[in-house]
Amino acid sequence: MRTITFVTSNENKMREFRLLLEPGFKINAVKLEYPELKSDDNSEIARIAAKMLSEKIKKAVIVEDSGLFIDILNGFPGTNSKWVHRKIGINGLLKLLKGVKNRKCYYKSAIGYCEPGKEPVSFFGIEGGKVALREKGKYGWGHDPIFIPKGKKKTYGELRKNGAPNLFRVRAIEKLKKHLASGND
Amino acid sequence: MRTITFVTSNENKMREFRLLLEPGFKINAVKLEYPELKSDDNSEIARIAAKMLSEKIKKAVIVEDSGLFIDILNGFPGTNSKWVHRKIGINGLLKLLKGVKNRKCYYKSAIGYCEPGKEPVSFFGIEGGKVALREKGKYGWGHDPIFIPKGKKKTYGELRKNGAPNLFRVRAIEKLKKHLASGND
Repeated sequence: MRTITFVTSNENKMREFRLLLEPGFKINAVKLEYPELKSDDNSEIARIAAKMLSEKIKKAVIVEDSGLFIDILNGFPGTNSKWVHRKIGINGLLKLLKGVKNRKCYYKSAIGYCEPGKEPVSFFGIEGGKVALREKGKYGWGHDPIFIPKGKKKTYGELRKNGAPNLFRVRAIEKLKKHLASGND
Repeated sequence: MRTITFVTSNENKMREFRLLLEPGFKINAVKLEYPELKSDDNSEIARIAAKMLSEKIKKAVIVEDSGLFIDILNGFPGTNSKWVHRKIGINGLLKLLKGVKNRKCYYKSAIGYCEPGKEPVSFFGIEGGKVALREKGKYGWGHDPIFIPKGKKKTYGELRKNGAPNLFRVRAIEKLKKHLASGND
């Protein structure tokens, strides 16, 4: 069975990847902070990180980066979602959208995958929705408590009770799975 | 006379570097977008970019990166100042600070310098101040119209009339100049 190393410091993310990829593939977790490129394309960020890490640890590597892209803010916080979250929090984002009617946004997951000596590939999953008027729910992480997926009335902070994964991330993982199963990497 | 290549797409910045470094050194301008690392330390960003560029173009290279670090926002927009400015503008920053009394911040310039085959070095200049309550003045660029330097009552957007340079950047350039003159790079 093929073993793949998932480099992440997020244990919940790890669990979701295992849920969807095992038992077909063995997923090894490695907690490691790694340098990232500044870019407006998180697929590019994920590819470059996967390439760098697979060269470094000489193993097949997965990395995942997700971000919330808000239309009226030109895609902010987007590829810097984690960093922006650490700096200004959910309250900061809500402040930026105070009184704003157009709250359209999308959540995007980008997975980078690379085997040693090969070129990296990436897979993304997207889900449209809107930014809630206030923080709701305590499940999930990142911007989950203010993201209301299209067709729903609740935030991911509420919907992810019992560990339900984000659909956009499932979509990206399914693409990765298909690629791994086809063996054409 | 030593020639150094300054990689930037900002012509005004170019002029300021020339003003302070010539005629002692010849500064060549190269307009080039280059990849940057995500980091909370813009000196590190500048060093890595200078190293990468000097390897690429095989010349002694300068890059400069400046950012506004706001205390109450944990240093936001900091190392992503240019990107944040493009996404949410000055109005976005003012919205984040609406009703906030503590407007302390500092402006930082980080210069990266690297000669081909050598390790990169960096020099920084810092200037404390506060974020204005509203945008004032049309001179300079970036966050100049909302930055009031310590000891002043006007923003850099007003103070930079007639092309007066930012003190924090002058401080960084003076350190670079001293380093270049000492010949120990």
